[in-house]
Amino acid sequence: MSRDLQHRLFQELDRLVLIDPHTHINPHAPASKTLVDVLGYHYYTELAHSAGMPKSQIEEPGLAPREKFMRLAARLAPLSNTIQYSWFLEIAREFFGAELSSDLNSWEKLYDSSLERMSKPDWEQQVLKQSGLEGVFLTNDFDDPLEGFDTKLYIPCLRTDDLVFHLARPEVQARLEKASGVSVHNVRSLRQALGNLFTHFVSRGAKACAISLPPDFTPSKVDDHTAEEALKLVLGQGPDALHTRQLGEFVFWTLTELCADHKLPFDLMIGVNRRVYADGVFQGQDLFDSRVSLIQYRELFNAFPQVTFPVSVLTSVANQELVDYSWIFPNVVTNGHWWYSNTPTFIEHDAACRLEAVPRTKQIGYYSDMYKLEFALPKFRMYKRILAKILGERFVLDRGWSEDAALQLGRELLRGNVEKIFGVG
Amino acid sequence: MSRDLQHRLFQELDRLVLIDPHTHINPHAPASKTLVDVLGYHYYTELAHSAGMPKSQIEEPGLAPREKFMRLAARLAPLSNTIQYSWFLEIAREFFGAELSSDLNSWEKLYDSSLERMSKPDWEQQVLKQSGLEGVFLTNDFDDPLEGFDTKLYIPCLRTDDLVFHLARPEVQARLEKASGVSVHNVRSLRQALGNLFTHFVSRGAKACAISLPPDFTPSKVDDHTAEEALKLVLGQGPDALHTRQLGEFVFWTLTELCADHKLPFDLMIGVNRRVYADGVFQGQDLFDSRVSLIQYRELFNAFPQVTFPVSVLTSVANQELVDYSWIFPNVVTNGHWWYSNTPTFIEHDAACRLEAVPRTKQIGYYSDMYKLEFALPKFRMYKRILAKILGERFVLDRGWSEDAALQLGRELLRGNVEKIFGVG
Amino acid sequence: MSRDLQHRLFQELDRLVLIDPHTHINPHAPASKTLVDVLGYHYYTELAHSAGMPKSQIEEPGLAPREKFMRLAARLAPLSNTIQYSWFLEIAREFFGAELSSDLNSWEKLYDSSLERMSKPDWEQQVLKQSGLEGVFLTNDFDDPLEGFDTKLYIPCLRTDDLVFHLARPEVQARLEKASGVSVHNVRSLRQALGNLFTHFVSRGAKACAISLPPDFTPSKVDDHTAEEALKLVLGQGPDALHTRQLGEFVFWTLTELCADHKLPFDLMIGVNRRVYADGVFQGQDLFDSRVSLIQYRELFNAFPQVTFPVSVLTSVANQELVDYSWIFPNVVTNGHWWYSNTPTFIEHDAACRLEAVPRTKQIGYYSDMYKLEFALPKFRMYKRILAKILGERFVLDRGWSEDAALQLGRELLRGNVEKIFGVG
Repeated sequence: MSRDLQHRLFQELDRLVLIDPHTHINPHAPASKTLVDVLGYHYYTELAHSAGMPKSQIEEPGLAPREKFMRLAARLAPLSNTIQYSWFLEIAREFFGAELSSDLNSWEKLYDSSLERMSKPDWEQQVLKQSGLEGVFLTNDFDDPLEGFDTKLYIPCLRTDDLVFHLARPEVQARLEKASGVSVHNVRSLRQALGNLFTHFVSRGAKACAISLPPDFTPSKVDDHTAEEALKLVLGQGPDALHTRQLGEFVFWTLTELCADHKLPFDLMIGVNRRVYADGVFQGQDLFDSRVSLIQYRELFNAFPQVTFPVSVLTSVANQELVDYSWIFPNVVTNGHWWYSNTPTFIEHDAACRLEAVPRTKQIGYYSDMYKLEFALPKFRMYKRILAKILGERFVLDRGWSEDAALQLGRELLRGNVEKIFGVG
Repeated sequence: MSRDLQHRLFQELDRLVLIDPHTHINPHAPASKTLVDVLGYHYYTELAHSAGMPKSQIEEPGLAPREKFMRLAARLAPLSNTIQYSWFLEIAREFFGAELSSDLNSWEKLYDSSLERMSKPDWEQQVLKQSGLEGVFLTNDFDDPLEGFDTKLYIPCLRTDDLVFHLARPEVQARLEKASGVSVHNVRSLRQALGNLFTHFVSRGAKACAISLPPDFTPSKVDDHTAEEALKLVLGQGPDALHTRQLGEFVFWTLTELCADHKLPFDLMIGVNRRVYADGVFQGQDLFDSRVSLIQYRELFNAFPQVTFPVSVLTSVANQELVDYSWIFPNVVTNGHWWYSNTPTFIEHDAACRLEAVPRTKQIGYYSDMYKLEFALPKFRMYKRILAKILGERFVLDRGWSEDAALQLGRELLRGNVEKIFGVG
Repeated sequence: MSRDLQHRLFQELDRLVLIDPHTHINPHAPASKTLVDVLGYHYYTELAHSAGMPKSQIEEPGLAPREKFMRLAARLAPLSNTIQYSWFLEIAREFFGAELSSDLNSWEKLYDSSLERMSKPDWEQQVLKQSGLEGVFLTNDFDDPLEGFDTKLYIPCLRTDDLVFHLARPEVQARLEKASGVSVHNVRSLRQALGNLFTHFVSRGAKACAISLPPDFTPSKVDDHTAEEALKLVLGQGPDALHTRQLGEFVFWTLTELCADHKLPFDLMIGVNRRVYADGVFQGQDLFDSRVSLIQYRELFNAFPQVTFPVSVLTSVANQELVDYSWIFPNVVTNGHWWYSNTPTFIEHDAACRLEAVPRTKQIGYYSDMYKLEFALPKFRMYKRILAKILGERFVLDRGWSEDAALQLGRELLRGNVEKIFGVG
């Protein structure tokens, strides 16, 4: 009975048309052109590499797409247990009607049959429609011109990692000057430059600012004088770690002030260490130190009551802090199930804890984090199945809720809260 | 079958008459006078505030109870998913026969109908009886005279936070002098003063000493000479952080010695940071840093084998340490599911882990932590439902236990161990 | 249906013949001689002590086995809820056909009837056969001659804790000199001595190197010059903490180099603090600080891509890091469910997370960690029941796998990966 109920709830949730609140879609090439765009996703390359496939085989330059696809396909058997693998099976089944087996012939046939469909001019529209998507948040570099695409469909979001962590790099300084039209030589002009980025982004329909943060990041307000000194060293030669960090904190704080001015939510994605496995494949090098706490954001959350912070944490062990900080702070909301916590057992535990203790209006259920449109369908479905299980067992059966009431809660998490928190839809 | 079994076990567990081993009941006003006393519980005010209700509306002085109740009721919809909300529904149903809906009329009617019952002179006795409570531990300030109530029903417990963390405050020093009859001017008189508090509390039937501790607290024995120096600075003007901490550790150690002398268990409630959200509502400001370890208590647990430490941890991620320290140290016992871990998914995980690895005699299943008597019923029932689920699935079905044997285990956790560990009942 | 499925899968998994990849078996006395060898396992003595049995009663010298057994048996009632207790019940049932009750007569009868069987010359073979074991990894001291037993059945593994953490002890130095035939007086001779140990172990069929590590251990490459200075102090008198640590890190790094040279996997068992409860019973004194991260092993994992590191973590909260480091690093594999995480609720959560995200070829499902052969059966069965539950619910029901496919995955975790990773079978 529990499984029937779960299935019924899933079916209803799966009818929703959604706005995906965080992706890495390139709006100029949102859908895959070949299945290599799908299997080239770092989840497959890094897992294949982890299971023994040499990086040189994965990243060999000039490889024809079909050959690359088959080469990867031949190395996926060791990952067949993973949930990531099941996403690919679902893509094959749902978009191309293919039932893949361990026989590589079935993969070869899929590649060929998929090519035709993917080369249709309306492939992107087909995928959007079949996936039930009517809006897709982007993650744009700060110097993205945001031109040449429909910003109602592909909603800009200002990504700020480079500004906070890499302003010491001359090329980042050059990009900032070019994008903002301001030559940064002191704190005042830095503020102006950052402000111009926001003005541009907001004028082009941006609905959020976003950043990913390492576990040891602890934002605090840096006074102008200290920032001035740090900026001088950073713009000159040889900034040390201390001044680089101080300037980063100053930029971060200034970005938050600009979020306040422009009424943009600031997505904080907390906990990633970059390039831990330096010889890993592209995008398959990052890991983390799970010893991180939201207490590091105490000063920030108190200082900006007017800014909404949708917070993602990288690990399930940080989820209780996220639940409890969202329970107490009006400006903190839970945001999806990120990356290494985006697997069923973690999602089930984390989502159940949130549903029991965080106001329903303060939970953004899920985002796909995808690079290509084809992934929204299997990823959202994975989440919807788990959400249906929690709603069925913990609300309908344990707490006597009606199915309608449970579905209403599910719809808020999947759609309503995205609209309200980001002001879209 | 599993749900039938679970329900059957719950029904049996729900017949027990209990002693609630940790509450914040005021024995001079244990039951609510109006439903504002219920909805005014910080769980509702802080969640309503978190969901957008301004603090000024919640804490407006001079508001009539009925108006305050309706004002809060009108802001609860965003919390309707939370387990805390379900406690209120259960209070309304069980004590007042009311089925609340989202229609505020039903709340208004409940308020009016409840008033009559709550103003009956035997309301307190009715609630105790209906809740199956025959003893309720208090949490008394160290200078509580402990007079004017039945200390067999409302069992005193010496709360020591002020002594350990706030002895630098002149008003705390004045309260200590008044309560103990000792003027504290050196370590010797400090010991005497603390000893007098214990003598008073024990003479009035106190059965435990208790304290809540921040994540960075690491008790260690401070020698008299160091304590003397620290005390001098604390009593004088301008103690620094170091000496304040040293004196706190000295007081804590001395309290533990007094627990040994007086054979009192010492409840340690580990992990809370106070006033993290400084602008939060009353009692809705505290959070934590989950990076805490019981290794910090190594010296303490080794130094006092004769003192029983019922330990509560604030987070589920600390639960494994609690399980394993209780498994190894004879003087450490698990104590309930505290505050931010007192929601079903965390309780289920944490309780299951304890039941599998900690001797059954060393587990205090649950306490309500309530401020008003009406909350024992829904909170204990929440726990009993989860306990019934664990006993049914993991003991009866997985391990082939009889239902009687499973119920016997449940009864020990709910009642027997409270009697044995605290020497009550 | 789910329970039937689970049972069916368990039955199939339970037919496998296994190689146990980590134990503490003494190959000269692998099976128990009396049931005291079973109940004397630290799990029972430490839990009985934790529940109130004085250490002096447990470790009284010269006690006759029968008396010791009955003395312990009389103190087990408080542990009857624990999973460890259920292991003993299963041993009694499966090996001796005894159904134990709380009546101590049944224990006395068991003791007597078991004695006869255990004194049969083929008892060891009987246990191995009934347990489905055809290989058992040992954990050998570095100076073990590895003689007098069948190294195909009892597979040597070089335990290196003493070398890394206790080389400052003169007796360890003496043992090293004797075992290696090298007098250690500088870094060069130290390397030679360690190399000789490896040569000896590998010549006697060793298939792994192993070490248990405290939570604060952070391996890094120590240059020869620094190591030389540290060694001088350690060999002389009065090494300080810094130099002892540096030498330990040097030895650890050198051992890893030797693992590379000899193509041995290096089992890392991460997270234990020794003697936290100093007055505990034998082997019942160790606990931990859960604040540990695999980021501490970043330099190591990057430096030795050619060495396979089967990693065990002590706590469930460290499991996500283990999952994710195994997901990214080709040379990191998950290894069993160690010690304090070897209870059903933790195993179920941890194993499910691994099965969803770590390549199936990189997971060593389980090891018994046993001291006496009789424990493999109940411990492996506990794991198999949980594995069957996960495979049934999460793969067959949730993901539509066939039972055969699920069983194939289970067999790899239980047997196939042990063969491939350690080169045995």
